[in-house]
Amino acid sequence: MSAENPDLAIAQAATLRPIAEIAERAGIPADALVPYGSDKAKVDVRKMSAPASHGKLVLVSAMSPTPAGEGKSTTTVGVADAFTLKGQSTMVALREPALGPIMGIKGGATGGGYAQVVPMEDINLHFTGDFHAIQIANNTLAALVDNHIHQGNQLRIDPRRIQWKRVVDVNDRALRSIVVGLGGPTQGVPREDGFDIVVASEIMAILCLASDLADLEARISRVVVGFTYDRAPVTVEDLGVAGAITMLLKDALLPNLVQTLGGTPALVHGGPFANIAHGCNSLAATRLALSLSEITVTEAGFGSDLGAEKFLDIKARLGGLSPDGAVVVATVRALKMHGGVAKDDLASENVEAILAGTVNLGRHVENLRKFGLEPVVAVNRFPTDTEAELQAVLDWARQQGFRVALSEVWAKGGEGGLAVADELLEAMKPAGGSAGSSGAGGSAGGGGASGSAGGGGASGSVGGGGASGSAGGGFHHLYDPADGVEASLRTLARELYGADDVVFEDKAPAQLRMLQRNGWDQLPVCVAKTQYSFSDDPKLLGAPTGHVLHVRDLVPKIGAGFVVAMTGAIMTMPGLPKEPAATRMGVTDDGESIGLF
Amino acid sequence: MSAENPDLAIAQAATLRPIAEIAERAGIPADALVPYGSDKAKVDVRKMSAPASHGKLVLVSAMSPTPAGEGKSTTTVGVADAFTLKGQSTMVALREPALGPIMGIKGGATGGGYAQVVPMEDINLHFTGDFHAIQIANNTLAALVDNHIHQGNQLRIDPRRIQWKRVVDVNDRALRSIVVGLGGPTQGVPREDGFDIVVASEIMAILCLASDLADLEARISRVVVGFTYDRAPVTVEDLGVAGAITMLLKDALLPNLVQTLGGTPALVHGGPFANIAHGCNSLAATRLALSLSEITVTEAGFGSDLGAEKFLDIKARLGGLSPDGAVVVATVRALKMHGGVAKDDLASENVEAILAGTVNLGRHVENLRKFGLEPVVAVNRFPTDTEAELQAVLDWARQQGFRVALSEVWAKGGEGGLAVADELLEAMKPAGGSAGSSGAGGSAGGGGASGSAGGGGASGSVGGGGASGSAGGGFHHLYDPADGVEASLRTLARELYGADDVVFEDKAPAQLRMLQRNGWDQLPVCVAKTQYSFSDDPKLLGAPTGHVLHVRDLVPKIGAGFVVAMTGAIMTMPGLPKEPAATRMGVTDDGESIGLF
Repeated sequence: MSAENPDLAIAQAATLRPIAEIAERAGIPADALVPYGSDKAKVDVRKMSAPASHGKLVLVSAMSPTPAGEGKSTTTVGVADAFTLKGQSTMVALREPALGPIMGIKGGATGGGYAQVVPMEDINLHFTGDFHAIQIANNTLAALVDNHIHQGNQLRIDPRRIQWKRVVDVNDRALRSIVVGLGGPTQGVPREDGFDIVVASEIMAILCLASDLADLEARISRVVVGFTYDRAPVTVEDLGVAGAITMLLKDALLPNLVQTLGGTPALVHGGPFANIAHGCNSLAATRLALSLSEITVTEAGFGSDLGAEKFLDIKARLGGLSPDGAVVVATVRALKMHGGVAKDDLASENVEAILAGTVNLGRHVENLRKFGLEPVVAVNRFPTDTEAELQAVLDWARQQGFRVALSEVWAKGGEGGLAVADELLEAMKPAGGSAGSSGAGGSAGGGGASGSAGGGGASGSVGGGGASGSAGGGFHHLYDPADGVEASLRTLARELYGADDVVFEDKAPAQLRMLQRNGWDQLPVCVAKTQYSFSDDPKLLGAPTGHVLHVRDLVPKIGAGFVVAMTGAIMTMPGLPKEPAATRMGVTDDGESIGLF
Repeated sequence: MSAENPDLAIAQAATLRPIAEIAERAGIPADALVPYGSDKAKVDVRKMSAPASHGKLVLVSAMSPTPAGEGKSTTTVGVADAFTLKGQSTMVALREPALGPIMGIKGGATGGGYAQVVPMEDINLHFTGDFHAIQIANNTLAALVDNHIHQGNQLRIDPRRIQWKRVVDVNDRALRSIVVGLGGPTQGVPREDGFDIVVASEIMAILCLASDLADLEARISRVVVGFTYDRAPVTVEDLGVAGAITMLLKDALLPNLVQTLGGTPALVHGGPFANIAHGCNSLAATRLALSLSEITVTEAGFGSDLGAEKFLDIKARLGGLSPDGAVVVATVRALKMHGGVAKDDLASENVEAILAGTVNLGRHVENLRKFGLEPVVAVNRFPTDTEAELQAVLDWARQQGFRVALSEVWAKGGEGGLAVADELLEAMKPAGGSAGSSGAGGSAGGGGASGSAGGGGASGSVGGGGASGSAGGGFHHLYDPADGVEASLRTLARELYGADDVVFEDKAPAQLRMLQRNGWDQLPVCVAKTQYSFSDDPKLLGAPTGHVLHVRDLVPKIGAGFVVAMTGAIMTMPGLPKEPAATRMGVTDDGESIGLF
């Protein structure tokens, strides 16, 4: 095992079971399995009977992330492996990693230590090609738009009002703001343009929200690529190419099957970022997992203010999902940073800073309670944590009346996730009306199986904008889109972000009027916001209040079915750092990757 | 079968054999097979013993193409199926289709009728993701270059002298000439830039010429991305990211195995265009085929002036290949067009025009003879051809002393290729010194197997610029790179294109001096030139003489190991037509493609 790169070494040393065996274990018929090598496959859901959802759904979120890394994917995998150890039929539903950030800072996104999905290298690199398919579908559409204008512009598309951007899966800041079509009359029509990263593409959102191929094509048809000189929307249907774009995505729509190191079947499919997109794995994969297993453990990007909120207000609403349990991942290191410690000083024990940083964790728990969920706080243990620090977090959480358990999945795999799994089973017991005030039974050491995973669960009551402080009412959404985009944003800002006000500036006021004019004002909102803070300022750590949410643009994504609100300085194309991770990567002559982590 | 789209209908109706069975037939061990679904696989050559080449190699070229379509891939597949029918162990080695042109005009590139490689839809769409991997490897490198400049530019790269362009697999004319890095100091450094199509990427050339992973990385290290303010070359090695770029390509380097409709194992791998790149499938795939089969049938893009010349002068030189036989595909329709008939008038019988158009075909045969090859003219029959027209072509060819046979593979599959196969076997017989004057035994109707495929074959004598009119001397290259780029270009222009002169204009004179200054003047040349004419003017059909070749730029591709000469108005990014093929494409609810052809 390489000391500098234990995750890759652990993944490369693992003996994987044939994917056909994993599929059989999951209940996927052999003729629905499309193998990609011996350890990956797509599941052709068209060859399976219509899945009936019957399992319980656990949503994993986290406190506001820090550069130290929280381990949300790691926890998701480890807790699922714990359920598998306990004999529950379990599946994991994760997002696919994006390549761009891997070449920059981030490393892979397949968990870590002994809680990983594998084959780690393949999943982090090209996997089954879904992101590539999305890229070329997105960019083919872009070329068709510019070509239409070049060839006479029968639809009278205003080159200044094209909103469909090209994408690459590369952190490429030089492509954020560009001018295309230069070079004279044979080279297209000059106009201002820019590239986004693939995960921000509306095609990604559509793929993750489509229920089947017909729905995919219908959504693509509705995509608004821009506006005419008369400000009328121009759709993909107007261009007559929805069929071609859908054809390019027909395989990408099928969920990907892999396995965890603990042998749990894992669906890794779709991968929008939660800070610039809706941040959840595909609805198709989640539904498949719910139809096949007793427990599905899934995650949404970043904290309760981003991925989890979008899971609950967008994906769950659209897909009719109703989570039965939730987890908020916390770490000693992140608590210290939210308590004011600099990244370089994290190694020293500092209980005081941890207690100061709990305001961040506390708000994430309270945020999920506002959706009617009662989350379990999973304290994800790092080797550098001291016993006193860990105990301080556990004690604080119990004092708050939060369910809490220690997670040691990085070092111990599924065994290290049993305490969280047990706490989740307790929380998901039917008729547990007083769940909000329990939490004494944290049982950090492991404990016996409680087993009673069957039964009803909460029913998803759509609508009802008000936030309810108790978990008694069951799951509900936070806002009612019928109240309009502005009202929805004000609810999110007030209830989840702790903001005093929302200001619509720059392009936002005109865009709001545009949304109203076109009848798009009653769509759900997908907030693009920094992940580091509840506010739109990445430097405001902890649990800021009294701040103002700055909405600078509102972009209709009619195919996806929501409006993206651009806030603060968030950008839809990241850049590379001064010393990109790429400079430390390579491959052996035998084809094994070096430097992925 | 759909009348408007018979190729797709035939392909979709075919019953494919499991790819494991095809692999076994080809002699590929099971543990070297990486399945992609049931009908595609990558071959992990690292798990096979070092292949010893022993089979015969047949190179398929064609007359100058016309919008009517010549059927070179169709002929390649059909002739290979004919060899299979005759009991010879045979493999096909083709290029992968590019997606960009498929969405424009071209349709697929997997052959047609009953002479196709299948699964046709998958191969024409994303296949095993090779082009996607090349795209992201290319674009990751581009982002790393711009990021280096943005982060302080320690290497002193001159933003005006970056020659590494980004790529997409889309016909996107609006990206030909762009300005990137706009928007202020946090958005990169503004500069002029442009995108190429993926098939023009130097990464594509490198992948198609690399012998293994170590050679791939060494070539990537040598790639020149641009120049410093002092005009010193900056390489990928200087940037320290050759390992990361190679890692992104480690799976793409493995040849892809599929099958023909006749059950012949087919390696479809790599896909540079022959008008803007070197236009041959991968050396790795060709070598694998030669090591496994008695006969390998491969093709190179467009005519003898483009793909075949580059196969013989670049790929064969670098890979130590020596073709044993060659084919020039001709059609009645193309002959008519080269004889002056407009595309709309092709349906009428016109023997006179055909005879006028034979000048084009004749020069392609003579061109291949200049490499010491004695090609068989394969007259690819179309349903609209009349007997008198076909007979006129056969008679003319025999009068010229050319080997010729009728090919009916579109309608009859391998059966329709027996005449061409027999003629090839005759031509490849050892000690056939007078091959140049045979050709009487054309046996257009089929004929018995001649079987004697064993034995020596021609040896590849490197060097020797002079063109030899007879086939007696065996295979040799046309020019000696040691004479310099200018001399090589003059030889090609005089001997193959029929030009009187070569003019170096625009950037070419300065680039020629730059090549000399950097010691790159003795690399082979890869001419980017229109495929429609022997000249650099696409309107000069037939066999023009007395024209001038205009070289406007010379681009060093040090990783690939050649210099690209840009001639005439050829561009490395195509555009879409007024009515793109994409508008006729779609997918059924069951996931079957519509409108691919």
